[in-house]
Parts: sequence; structure tokens; C-alpha cells
Amino acid sequence: NRQGFPEIVYGEGKSAEQILTIVQSLRARNDSVLVTRISLEKAVIVQKNCPEFEYNEIARTLAWTEEKPKTNGYIAIVCAGTSDLSVAEEAAVTAETLGVNVRRIYDVGVAGLHRLLDNIEEIQNADVSVCVAGMEGALPSVLGGLITNPIIAVPTSVGYGANFNGLSALLSMLNSCASGVSVVNIDNGFGAAYNAVLIHRLAHKGEK
Amino acid sequence: NRQGFPEIVYGEGKSAEQILTIVQSLRARNDSVLVTRISLEKAVIVQKNCPEFEYNEIARTLAWTEEKPKTNGYIAIVCAGTSDLSVAEEAAVTAETLGVNVRRIYDVGVAGLHRLLDNIEEIQNADVSVCVAGMEGALPSVLGGLITNPIIAVPTSVGYGANFNGLSALLSMLNSCASGVSVVNIDNGFGAAYNAVLIHRLAHKGEK
Amino acid sequence: NRQGFPEIVYGEGKSAEQILTIVQSLRARNDSVLVTRISLEKAVIVQKNCPEFEYNEIARTLAWTEEKPKTNGYIAIVCAGTSDLSVAEEAAVTAETLGVNVRRIYDVGVAGLHRLLDNIEEIQNADVSVCVAGMEGALPSVLGGLITNPIIAVPTSVGYGANFNGLSALLSMLNSCASGVSVVNIDNGFGAAYNAVLIHRLAHKGEK
Amino acid sequence: NRQGFPEIVYGEGKSAEQILTIVQSLRARNDSVLVTRISLEKAVIVQKNCPEFEYNEIARTLAWTEEKPKTNGYIAIVCAGTSDLSVAEEAAVTAETLGVNVRRIYDVGVAGLHRLLDNIEEIQNADVSVCVAGMEGALPSVLGGLITNPIIAVPTSVGYGANFNGLSALLSMLNSCASGVSVVNIDNGFGAAYNAVLIHRLAHKGEK
Amino acid sequence: NRQGFPEIVYGEGKSAEQILTIVQSLRARNDSVLVTRISLEKAVIVQKNCPEFEYNEIARTLAWTEEKPKTNGYIAIVCAGTSDLSVAEEAAVTAETLGVNVRRIYDVGVAGLHRLLDNIEEIQNADVSVCVAGMEGALPSVLGGLITNPIIAVPTSVGYGANFNGLSALLSMLNSCASGVSVVNIDNGFGAAYNAVLIHRLAHKGEK
Amino acid sequence: NRQGFPEIVYGEGKSAEQILTIVQSLRARNDSVLVTRISLEKAVIVQKNCPEFEYNEIARTLAWTEEKPKTNGYIAIVCAGTSDLSVAEEAAVTAETLGVNVRRIYDVGVAGLHRLLDNIEEIQNADVSVCVAGMEGALPSVLGGLITNPIIAVPTSVGYGANFNGLSALLSMLNSCASGVSVVNIDNGFGAAYNAVLIHRLAHKGEK
Amino acid sequence: NRQGFPEIVYGEGKSAEQILTIVQSLRARNDSVLVTRISLEKAVIVQKNCPEFEYNEIARTLAWTEEKPKTNGYIAIVCAGTSDLSVAEEAAVTAETLGVNVRRIYDVGVAGLHRLLDNIEEIQNADVSVCVAGMEGALPSVLGGLITNPIIAVPTSVGYGANFNGLSALLSMLNSCASGVSVVNIDNGFGAAYNAVLIHRLAHKGEK
Amino acid sequence: NRQGFPEIVYGEGKSAEQILTIVQSLRARNDSVLVTRISLEKAVIVQKNCPEFEYNEIARTLAWTEEKPKTNGYIAIVCAGTSDLSVAEEAAVTAETLGVNVRRIYDVGVAGLHRLLDNIEEIQNADVSVCVAGMEGALPSVLGGLITNPIIAVPTSVGYGANFNGLSALLSMLNSCASGVSVVNIDNGFGAAYNAVLIHRLAHKGEK
Ligand SMILES: Nc1ncnc2c1ncn2[C@@H]1O[C@H](COP(=O)(O)O)[C@@H](O)[C@H]1O
Ligand SMILES: Nc1ncnc2c1ncn2[C@@H]1O[C@H](COP(=O)(O)O)[C@@H](O)[C@H]1O
Ligand SMILES: Nc1ncnc2c1ncn2[C@@H]1O[C@H](COP(=O)(O)O)[C@@H](O)[C@H]1O
Ligand SMILES: Nc1ncnc2c1ncn2[C@@H]1O[C@H](COP(=O)(O)O)[C@@H](O)[C@H]1O
Ligand SMILES: [Mg+2]
Ligand SMILES: [Mg+2]
Ligand SMILES: [Mg+2]
Ligand SMILES: [Mg+2]
Ligand SMILES: [Mg+2]
Ligand SMILES: [Mg+2]
Ligand SMILES: [Mg+2]
Ligand SMILES: [Mg+2]
Repeated sequence: NRQGFPEIVYGEGKSAEQILTIVQSLRARNDSVLVTRISLEKAVIVQKNCPEFEYNEIARTLAWTEEKPKTNGYIAIVCAGTSDLSVAEEAAVTAETLGVNVRRIYDVGVAGLHRLLDNIEEIQNADVSVCVAGMEGALPSVLGGLITNPIIAVPTSVGYGANFNGLSALLSMLNSCASGVSVVNIDNGFGAAYNAVLIHRLAHKGEK
Repeated sequence: NRQGFPEIVYGEGKSAEQILTIVQSLRARNDSVLVTRISLEKAVIVQKNCPEFEYNEIARTLAWTEEKPKTNGYIAIVCAGTSDLSVAEEAAVTAETLGVNVRRIYDVGVAGLHRLLDNIEEIQNADVSVCVAGMEGALPSVLGGLITNPIIAVPTSVGYGANFNGLSALLSMLNSCASGVSVVNIDNGFGAAYNAVLIHRLAHKGEK
Repeated sequence: NRQGFPEIVYGEGKSAEQILTIVQSLRARNDSVLVTRISLEKAVIVQKNCPEFEYNEIARTLAWTEEKPKTNGYIAIVCAGTSDLSVAEEAAVTAETLGVNVRRIYDVGVAGLHRLLDNIEEIQNADVSVCVAGMEGALPSVLGGLITNPIIAVPTSVGYGANFNGLSALLSMLNSCASGVSVVNIDNGFGAAYNAVLIHRLAHKGEK
Repeated sequence: NRQGFPEIVYGEGKSAEQILTIVQSLRARNDSVLVTRISLEKAVIVQKNCPEFEYNEIARTLAWTEEKPKTNGYIAIVCAGTSDLSVAEEAAVTAETLGVNVRRIYDVGVAGLHRLLDNIEEIQNADVSVCVAGMEGALPSVLGGLITNPIIAVPTSVGYGANFNGLSALLSMLNSCASGVSVVNIDNGFGAAYNAVLIHRLAHKGEK
Repeated sequence: NRQGFPEIVYGEGKSAEQILTIVQSLRARNDSVLVTRISLEKAVIVQKNCPEFEYNEIARTLAWTEEKPKTNGYIAIVCAGTSDLSVAEEAAVTAETLGVNVRRIYDVGVAGLHRLLDNIEEIQNADVSVCVAGMEGALPSVLGGLITNPIIAVPTSVGYGANFNGLSALLSMLNSCASGVSVVNIDNGFGAAYNAVLIHRLAHKGEK
Repeated sequence: NRQGFPEIVYGEGKSAEQILTIVQSLRARNDSVLVTRISLEKAVIVQKNCPEFEYNEIARTLAWTEEKPKTNGYIAIVCAGTSDLSVAEEAAVTAETLGVNVRRIYDVGVAGLHRLLDNIEEIQNADVSVCVAGMEGALPSVLGGLITNPIIAVPTSVGYGANFNGLSALLSMLNSCASGVSVVNIDNGFGAAYNAVLIHRLAHKGEK
Repeated sequence: NRQGFPEIVYGEGKSAEQILTIVQSLRARNDSVLVTRISLEKAVIVQKNCPEFEYNEIARTLAWTEEKPKTNGYIAIVCAGTSDLSVAEEAAVTAETLGVNVRRIYDVGVAGLHRLLDNIEEIQNADVSVCVAGMEGALPSVLGGLITNPIIAVPTSVGYGANFNGLSALLSMLNSCASGVSVVNIDNGFGAAYNAVLIHRLAHKGEK
Repeated sequence: NRQGFPEIVYGEGKSAEQILTIVQSLRARNDSVLVTRISLEKAVIVQKNCPEFEYNEIARTLAWTEEKPKTNGYIAIVCAGTSDLSVAEEAAVTAETLGVNVRRIYDVGVAGLHRLLDNIEEIQNADVSVCVAGMEGALPSVLGGLITNPIIAVPTSVGYGANFNGLSALLSMLNSCASGVSVVNIDNGFGAAYNAVLIHRLAHKGEK
């Protein structure tokens, strides 16, 4: 499997049957298995044969996670609005399935700054943050000025009009005037969490 | 002249001679005259015949402003970084030539939030704010969550790469999740100030 | 609540149940409540529990507005064609729920100039106008040359082909050669009205 | 030569020497010759050998036009602002060199509607109009609602920011809600005039 | 009605009931009535009350055309491929309803040049051509080199991938190296025909 | 060296000194050497030390080609207008330096179809064609319908306005309705010729 | 028929009845017939009358291929990921129907380089390769550095977010730093195979 | 100063005098000082007063770095082609000024895979890599499949035509099918290095 990590299946465009076949073969060889971008309907079919898998309706993930000892570090998943929840949860479930503790700091968008400031210590104490925002995508820039650890920014396609399906947030994040911010594809909660887990691993490589 | 206001000449693409001719004819009929987007070289030529005009090198404006009684309200010109100064000053000079007091709150970009918070009272007390920002254009969104008066946002073309000459900031501002923000063209400090002056006039229409 | 104003719920992407829960909690604390971007189906479900709410099918809004004394100023909602009605009505309902009088001047597109000219006095007498137009988005430019109060322009996504979902009207409005025009996101009738209400409040701040 | 018309040379990217060679060979075979997009420097060189050619500095054209009897119809060249003059003059010179009368109706942009209305009869009486506008490109839409003859719209690249080198005006014109408007490339005054001359010829085909 | 022409209703986004109401009121005042962009389902409902209206399933038009004497000139509707038929037929029905003869020269795309060459005389003899093409949109350029009358080019949204919903054909047509070509919006068969009818009218204005 | 071919140096952004160093080291190991995108100034400097190199001012190439036996097949370089010559010559010189015969069929743009038809036999008899065109980029589509061998299409950045630096021609070529056309980057005459040479080699692999 | 090849029908936008009519008329005149972009539902209807036709559900093709002697050369169809299979299969079926042997080298994306390297000899031995990839579209560039025969690259629309429906892969392929790569439209497996067959025919023109 | 790090000055758009003033004030308070995007001319002026500063002509940086003990970890700066050197060097100098060891692995573009494979161990042993590539931007995807540590990808604006000033490489990197890749703005070598230094610091936080 990839990099000593659980295998992750991209569910989009695969039938329930295809996913089931893949999942069953992976189950034999892996500790944990994660399917992303899978609908409830398909998940139910897979779960009939693999009842130990848990479906997260917001994240649209299906995961089987074997409990293992974790570091006491954590990744902060920071999220601007309720409409970005789906992407934030995809990130959170990914990190958890990959064996890392997660703290969810949700609904801290820049239009209500005090909520972000109230939670800033918990975010600063994370090894690395995943920062999810749609529309103007300003959250990573503000956060980048407040903390000193790396931030993986995820633009979301939430919005309408001149949002152009996430282009607006994507460009904002790439142009961030705060240092320490790097960016993944629009709606790619999975990819952001994967990056964060790699960084977390570096930060704790001596441990355990 | 338009709307009881001083005449404003758009200097771009006009020769010093053309500007001089226009300015001299306007001087006869108006109290104040403003030329925007005019280079130092052209300004010097005009000033030879019209020594009462003042050139602002950062704003690239040439103005002759007759002193008149002002309201005690003011417009806040809020600016993210030093590279946005030129647009902010175009706005400031425009508002002043149009007869309104201005307060400059510069260098309060979102990557250094405390400076913005330190100045928030002065911004809140303005009738209306002009908010200038390039790159990710996050400042109007943050400001919009902190104050309750209207904000005219001006994206600037400052930046490089995925900034696409100001597109990044423009889209951010149009997608602002904070209410009370409206937007003018990239680098259009003049237009933002003009809007702000119209709003200021409404706020003080009984006075004087 | 925000800025002494009624609370506004963005209905898009929320289930009827979620909206009902939010609305019921807001009802306790607020005078007026507005839900935007809500379908008839969802509205009917909410209305079963909250029969005092009124649904506007064109605006796709669900609102409960407590009657309060109003200023005798008003906002003009100016609209180019019949296909822009939905956005214009979102603006109108928003302003009304926020407690401001509205005058609807509809179907005054630039291809039939006389209708606009026939209504120009009523628009000029408004404190501020919301100007809604799709396709070539020329209406705010023409209007801006005829009146001297601020205009909040709303591009709509109405059109086809090189309209690119409202990009055409958006760019037109941002490039308006008339002064006094600022712009909000494509189809954002809510945001335009919110801005207009802030300006209206400034214009009448001594009153009542 | 093309369509019984004078030959037209596109000067851009050709050296003075290349242009001279072409022009001299055409002089032998044609009645009239027109070079477009030619700088003053190059024109002066050509004129040394061909002193009968006239250079138009605004249009950037070099033309030799043999006087011939004309119809008493005319083409109206309608132009929004002073910054669009160069394109409008390219159109005017093209039509004149092709042997058709032209009336220039300049500086009638939509932000000052009365000037357009004052000249509307002269435009209506033209067989066909060429309508040149930059920035928001609203003029052809307004004109299209006022007259009943065909309009060839020419977007110009004049403007800045969200103008995107004429894209804004181009999209506006393509989305015109007024019927009877067709469009040519950004800054293509020549092409618009050529179309207008073809239409003029149809309108007068029995004459002379 | 507009310009002495039949009234034309844009059916998109209007309900069958709305269309019926409009059509019935127009029937009283006009000779001919045309509805464009109307589905079969809606047309059938309208036809129940207005059985004299004819539905064209390819053009998606509903028309009632009073027979009137016509000129013996005609408009050529030239069309590249079978997939552009819908737009070509919208143009053809529009011109016919507006009282002008039409000749359909279909399936003459540039990849099979001989078919175009075989029909070139019939196209050349038209007063004006409407030229409909999708994908690479090359037909108007080729045609423009072969004939000497004006061409109204209509890009269509037919295609996939780098076609970007007609952008490809639109840009081609705007950049045509052949003179005498002007362009309307993507898929706007109606607008092209309207333009062509205006030109036809000029070409025959002495007649009848 | 690569694929048994002469080495090719991309001159853009390299100083004359850097190019000289590379060229001298390649001269030792190769039969032929080609530098593309090199200005006259730089070429002159290189030629001082390497007088056997020939500079092509239109192609902006510097080449030293050892004469070797050639196949009697050839590549046709087909070119729309005089302004595309630079790209066509880059292709021609590349193919020649790579040891393949070339026939230049220039100035056969689609607006003058007869010239293309007059030369069609020579193009058809080539193993493969490189087809260079700017603006609407229609030439490969027309050619593709007339011949049965592969065509490598090269869009050029020649044009203005809605040409968008070659985007127009690029999209046209990618959407070609004629089969047998593949495309390389805008202005990439080198790449097209390289492809054509690979195909030529396949067509003659038994020979020599 | 086209170029001595079987006729190919583009099924998109045609009804089952239209396809059946075309197919039956072609059956009379051709050896082989191919329909691309046809759904299972339509294919079943056609097959009722033409049971000798075979439907490929992944490629969405319906083909009747008469067995004929083939060369012993082959085309390599190289494919990055499982989600690009549909386009790869369209290419494979096209080449086979056109009478050329195909070898499928699937699932050799650049993120798992060893699989590509393991199969490189089989690809190198093909006369020409069709290389299908979505998302970052890197495969043709990597492959181009490893082999010395021509590569026809096909970008696919597979992906999300900043993929912009295949634009990402398309631009990558056009900018390939490896020589010998030319590009067809997004998802155009058919066009790529057609090109490859033309090249294959040249490479084997003496044979058989 | 920022995050316990040396201060970094963005030189673009600042005069030599402005830079000198800033640099002198920073020298008093900091250990190390870095100026990016500064031309040789400006650097020479600053160096007259601050002779301890070193100018890097390729990186266009001016730096004064106080020697401090370093960890024995390092950052790999991986670079595709010689034309990306400037951005790679900006990254390298930034990391070095921030006190971290750097290994330069240059000229390992995907078109010559063996050079990348020859150096893969040195890259794998870095804590984190900065991966710089222009044109098709494929390098981070290939690298991501070969190593298991985080990669910060930097697209460059090197290229022409459909490269669109780095858009091509940017989109490729955002769509990377390899996990562990995050992206910064086009040409932003500084930002990538800053991120890498933050990650390096986490990986060595116990040390020293
Ligand atoms: N910097 C500016 N940006 C946009 N519009 C401007 C600017 N300066 C002046 N204008 C507008 O341009 C008009 C004058 O244009 P002109 O007649 O060409 O000088 C003024 O009335 C303003 O409305
Ligand atoms: N139609 C609308 N368009 C844009 N923003 C809206 C709209 N309706 C409501 N909002 C904003 O969305 C906020 C509520 O979002 P939420 O908490 O998701 O319901 C409100 O405070 C408004 O600022
Ligand atoms: N297919 C069409 N495309 C563009 N404009 C159209 C079309 N059909 C009708 N129109 C225009 O739309 C106007 C009627 O719009 P409406 O009042 O909304 O029915 C007509 O006068 C035409 O100018
Ligand atoms: N005009 C050109 N356009 C694109 N690629 C080129 C061009 N000329 C040379 N090349 C490629 O650039 C490579 C050499 O690049 P370099 O090592 O930077 O000189 C050659 O092997 C060619 O593949
Ligand atoms: Mg930070
Ligand atoms: Mg606010
Ligand atoms: Mg006004
Ligand atoms: Mg009209
Ligand atoms: Mg012609
Ligand atoms: Mg062919
Ligand atoms: Mg190769
Ligand atoms: Mg990896």
C-alpha cells in the first residue's frame, strides 16, 4: 500500500459493485480502508457485505479504521461556514482514518472574527492546520497572520455568480499575503488532509 | 457640471496640451478641478500655466481645490498594503477635491490583524469607507464583519501570477460573505471615492 | 443580531427541517426574519409550523415582517426585463423586511428608452437605487447619467451564449462610464438591497 | 482586386519598405488604395515616394482616394467617448476611401444621453450605422432601441481593470437586447466600415 | 409594434400560460406573431387556443404568419452541419415570419468543400446570407472569400471539449480574415435573421 | 543525442555567450545543430566563432546542417498569410536541419480559396503536412477535407482583439470537424516539424 | 466514403431512428461501419435491425467490422487511470474498426511510474501511440521522453475543481516539453485513433 | 519580526532608496535580512551602504545571512529545466537565509526521466521538497509517486502560447494525481521555501 498508509479509494464514477470488489481485496491486505466521494446508496450496498464500515453522510466517506496508538499531536480542521462542512469533514475523516487526531474548529469565517480569535490557541497548538473556505476564501490569509505553523488551504466550490465554482476562493488562497499557506485543488479535502498527515508524521517521527 | 460637483478629467491617453486646454476651460467655470491618471511629466507642463494646481505623485493626480466649508463627517480610506497606496491616494485626493474630509487608515492588511483592530473605531465612525486591497482582497470581508456602515471595495492589480492583474481580488470582493460591501472596477480609486462622496452627501444632506 | 437588523437566512443547500429549526429560534429573538433562496416545497413545510410567514414565489423568499414605523424615504428597485424579475424581487423583499419602503420600477430596459425616461423622476427622488439587469447590463450606465444618487448595480445570469452566466453584465457594470455605480455579485439581489438599506439609514439617521 | 473595391493593406507588422512596394504596385492597378494600422514614421517614408497619399494621425491610416461620384446616402459613424476616436476614424476613413459619404456623430456616450438624443435623427437617416464604444459597450444597445436600420457594433479595447482589453464591451454587444445589432472584432473599425459599405451598396444598387 | 415588423416573443423562461396571454393580445394588434425558444409541450397548449399557429420542432418556434406580397430577393441561410440545424431553422422561420423569402443551403461545412462550391451561385445571388456554424466556425471565413454580399455569422454551441459551449466558433468568426462578416451571439439564429431582414429591406426599399 | 536526431537548442532567454558555449560543445558531437528563437544580434555573435552557421531572419533560427542523403519524400509546409511566415519558416528550417525535404506552400489562406485549390496536388503528395494559420485558424479544417494524409496544425498568435494571442486559432484547430488533424502549441513551428519528421521517418523506414 | 476508410457516424444528438437509417444505408456501401457516442438504449434499438453490430459499453461505440488482413504493426493505446478508460476504448475500437491492430496499455499513470517503465518496450515498438490522460495530463510528456515514435495525446475531462472539464490536461499536453507529441480535442478518442491510423498506413504503405 | 524568522522584504515596486531605508532599520533588529525581486541596479545602490549583503543574480535576491548552527536535515530544491532556475534559486536563497540547509537537484525534468531517477534518493532523504516546473508542470506528479515526504510545488511562468503565463503548470499541479503535493502561486519560490522551512522546523523541533 501507499507510503505505509491505509489505502484510499476514490468513489466517484465507480459503481457500488466495483467499490465492493476493491474494498474486499483491500480489507485482506490493509489495516484501514477509506472510500471518498461515495453516495449513501452505494455505501449501503457495500455495508451489507462489510458491516464494520462506517458511513459519514456529510463527508460522503465510507471508512473502516483499525484503532492504533496515536501521537498526542493533532491536526486542526478549520472551516469558514456551514456550507463548507462537507469538504471539512472529508478532510477530518481522512486524517482520522490515517491514524491522526483531529480537532474540528468550524464556523469561524472572517465575517465573524471574534469566533476565530476565541479559538486561535487551539489552532496554534496543532502541528498543522487544514483551512477550508469558499466564496472569497479569506480565512487562510487571516489565519496565516495569527499562527506560525503550516496551513493547507482548501478552496470550496460553494457560492454562486462570480464565484465561478470555486475559482474565486482558489485565486484568493494562491495570492495569500500571509506566509505559510499552500493550496490544494477546489473541494479536495482528502488531499489537504493527506498533506497534513505527512507533515504531522515528520513532526512526530521520533515518537512512539 | 455634473451633479453640482467639480469636473474630473481622465488623464490617461491625453497629451499634456490636451489636458491643459481642458483644464483652462474648466477653471473658468468650476470651483475645483481634478485630473486623474496623469504622469509627473505632463503635470509639470500643465503647472507651468496653472501654478495653483497641486500634483500628488503617489495618486498621480493634479488638482486645484477651492477651500469650502466641510461637514464634520468623514470618509475612511482603508488600505491593505504599501503597494496599494497609489489607488488609495487616488481615492483620497478625489474625495478631498470633492469637498469631503478624509481619514487615511493605511497598512492594515489582514495578515497583521491587530493593526486593523487597533484602528477599527476610527473606521466605524466614518459615514462610509473606501477599502482598497490587492492580491487575495480579503480586507473588505473582514472589515464588513466589524463595522456597520457601507463599504466601497476597490480591488487593485497589485500582485503576480494567479493574481491575473487584479482578477483575484475582484472576485474575492464580489463574493464577500460580509454584507454591506459593494465593488468598483480594479484600480478605480476615483470611482470608489465618488460613490462614497454621494453617500456622505446623503448622510449630511440636512446640514450646513 | 447583526447591525440592529432582522436576521437573514441563506436557504440554499439547507433542508426544510434545518430552516425550520433556525427560523423558530430566530423568531424568539428577532422582530423580523427573512429566508432567501428557498423553494416553494421547503417554504410550505416551514409555513405549517410558522403560518405567519409569507412566501414570495418570484423572489423565492420566506419572510415574517413585523410592522414598524418607516421613514418616508424609499429605495427604487429598477429592473431591465421581465426575466430579471426574480432578482429584483429578492432585493425588494429584502429591503421591505429590513423596514424600508420600496418603489418598483420594472421593465425599463435600455432597448426601450422612453419607459425609463418616463419614470426617471421617481427614481431620482429615491435615496438610493438598486438597478438589476442581465445580458449587456447597460441599464446602470444609462441610469447613472440621468440621476445623482448612488446606484447599486446587480448583474443577473439571465441570457445565453456569450453571456457566460452573467459575466457579460457583471463586466459591463464594473466598467460603467457613469460615476456613482457600485456592483454586487451576479444575482445577489439580497446584497444590493442590504447595501441600499445601509445607505438609506445614513440618509435618515436624524429622523424618527 | 477584392469585390470591385479599392485594395486595403494591413500595415501592422510590415516594414515601411514592404508597404511602399505593395502600395506602388497597387497604385498601378487600382483607383484608390488604403493602408491601415500604419505609424506616422512609416507613413512619412511611404509619402516621400507617394506624395499624393494622405496620412490620418488619429486613424493611423494612409490613403489615396480618387474622387468618384457618390450616392447621396451616407453611413453614420457613432462614437461613445473621446478615447474611442482612433477606431471611429479608422472606420470613417475606410468608408470614405471605399467611396461612401460618412457623417461623424462623436462623443455621444450613454452617460450623457441627451447628446445622443439630440443627434438621433441624423443617425436614423443613415442607411446603416457603425457604432464604436469601449468600457461597458452600452451604446449599440441604446441606439438599437432608437433607430430601425442595421448597426455594426465595434467594441474597443479602451479601459482598464475588468475591461480585459475590450472583452467587456465585446460581450455587451454580443448580448445586446436590442435587435439589429451585429458585431465585429475588438478595435476593428476597418471591418465594421467594410460591412457598412457592403450594406450601403445594396441600399443604392439601382442608383448612379 | 417595433419597426413595422411582427412582434417576436422570447419563449425561454415563460410558462405556456404566460405565452398564451401574450400571443392572444398580440394577435389582436399584429399581422404576424412569432414565439422563439418554445418547447413542444408549451406549443401544444398554446395551439389549443390558437390553432392557426404552426410549430417547427427543429427551430423550436411557434409562428402565425399572414401571407403578404414579398420581394423577389431572398436571404440565404447557410449551415455547416446537421447539428447546427436547430439554429439555422430558427433563423429561417424568423425571416419567413418577417415576410422575406429564404433559401436553405444546408450541410455545406468546410470539411466537404465541393458541396459549398456547388451551391455558391445561389448564395452569391442572395442579398445577404446568414451563415451558421459550430465547432471551428470556419464556414463564414471561407464563404466570405467567395461572395461579395454581407454575411451575418452565427456561432453555435454544438461541440464538446475545447469548444467551450460555442466560444471556439465565436472567436473564429470574430477573427475572420475575410471582409464582410459580422457576428451575433452564440445560437442566436433569431438575431441574425433579424439583421438580415433589415438589410434585405434596404436592398429593396424602392420596390413593391 | 535524442532519437538519432541533431540537437536543438531553445534560444529564448539564453545569452549569446550561453548559446555559443552550448553550440560549440554540440558541434563536436553532432552532425547538425539548430538554435531556435534566437535574435539577429545574438546570432551575429555566435557566427563570429562559428561562421559555418546560417541565420534565417524570418524563422529566427541559427543552423548548421551537414548535407546527408535524403528520401525523395517531403513535408509540405502550408501557411495561411504573410504574417504567419515566421512560424512557417521555423517549421521549414527545423525539418530541413533534421534532414527532410520541404516544400513551402505559402499564402494559401481560406479567404482566397482558389490559391489553395491550385496547390492541392503538391500538398496531397506530401507524406505529411504542417499547416500554419492565425486569426480564425480555418486552414487545417479546409485542408483536412481535401487531403488524406496527416496534418499537424500550428496556431499562431497573429491577430488582435478577440484573437487573445492565438487562443482563437488554437480552439478552432482543436475543434476541427475534419479528421486527420492534430495540434501543437501556439507558434510552435519547431514542434510541428519535429512531429512531421517522425512521421516522415516512419513512412520511409525501409528506404535508403 | 472518407479516404478509403469505413464510414464513421457521430451518434451524439441523433435519435436511434436517425442512426438506424444512416447505418442501414452505409451497410450497403461499406465494409465496416462505426457509430461513436451512442448510448446503450439507442444501440439496442439499432441492433434489433442490425444484429451483426457489436456494442462496446465502455467506449459507447456500435461497430460492424469486416475481418480483413492486417499489417503486423500496431498502435499502442496508453492510458493513465481507470477513469480515462472510456476515451481510451473509443480510440481502440476506432482503430480496430479501421482495420489496424491495437495493444492496450492501461493504468500506467505517472504517479506509479514503474508500471509505465515495465511496459515501455511494447509501447516503443508500436508505430505510433495514442496517449490518454486526464487531471494533470502528464503522461504524454513522460512517455515522449522515453520513446521515439509519434504520440497523439488525448486530454480527458475527468477530474473536478481546477480541472475545468479537461482544460488542465489540454494545456499540459500542448505545453509538453517532450518533442513528438501532438494533441486532439478533450475526450476525442476517435480523432486520436484516426490520426494514428493515417500514420500507421504511411508506415506500412509498401506492405500487403 | 515574523515567527522568529529573519525579516523578508518584497523588492518589486520599491525604489533603491526605499529598500535601503528598510534594510538599514531591519539590520539593527534582526539577525538576517532578505530582499526578493530586486534588480542588479538597485542592489548595487544598497550594497554601497551595506557591503555585507550578497546579491544573487539568478534569484534576484539581496541577502545578509548571519551564520547560525543548522540542523542536519535539509530541503531539496528540485527543478525541471534551466529556464526555471530563477524561481528555484529564489527558493534556495530564501531557505538558506532562514537558516536551513538546501540541496539543489536541478535539470531533472520529466522529458529526461533517468536524471530524476538517478537523484531520487537524495530527494527522498530531504524532510520536504520544493518542486519547481513550468510548461506542463508534470514534475511534482511524477515526484509525488516516487517519494513519501511532502512536496511544495511551484508553477513557473516560463513558456509561451497555451502556457498562458504559468496557468498551464498551475492547473497541472493543482490536479496532481499524486498525493502529498500542495501548491503556491506562480513563480512564488519565496513562498514555497517559507512553507518548507516551517515544515522542516516541525521535523526538527526537539533538536539543537
Ligand atoms: N481614474 C478614473 N477612473 C475611471 N473614470 C474616471 C477616472 N477619472 C475620471 N474618470 C471619469 O472620466 C470622466 C472624464 O472623462 P474625460 O472626458 O475623458 O476626461 C469623468 O467625469 C469621470 O467620470
Ligand atoms: N441570497 C443571498 N445571497 C448572498 N448572501 C445571502 C443571501 N441570503 C442571505 N445571505 C447571507 O447569508 C447569511 C446567513 O448565512 P447562513 O448562516 O448560512 O444562513 C446572512 O447573514 C446573509 O449575510
Ligand atoms: N431567440 C431569441 N434570441 C434572442 N432574442 C430574442 C429571441 N427571440 C426573441 N428575442 C427578442 O426578445 C424580445 C422579446 O422579449 P420578451 O418581451 O421577453 O418576449 C423580442 O422583441 C426580440 O428582440
Ligand atoms: N521553438 C521551440 N519551441 C518549443 N520547444 C523547443 C523549441 N526549440 C527547441 N525546443 C525544445 O527545447 C529543447 C532544448 O531546450 P534547452 O535545453 O533549454 O535548449 C529541445 O530539445 C527541444 O525539444
Ligand atoms: Mg503564519
Ligand atoms: Mg458590516
Ligand atoms: Mg449619476
Ligand atoms: Mg433598432
Ligand atoms: Mg466577401
Ligand atoms: Mg483529411
Ligand atoms: Mg519522444
Ligand atoms: Mg508521494
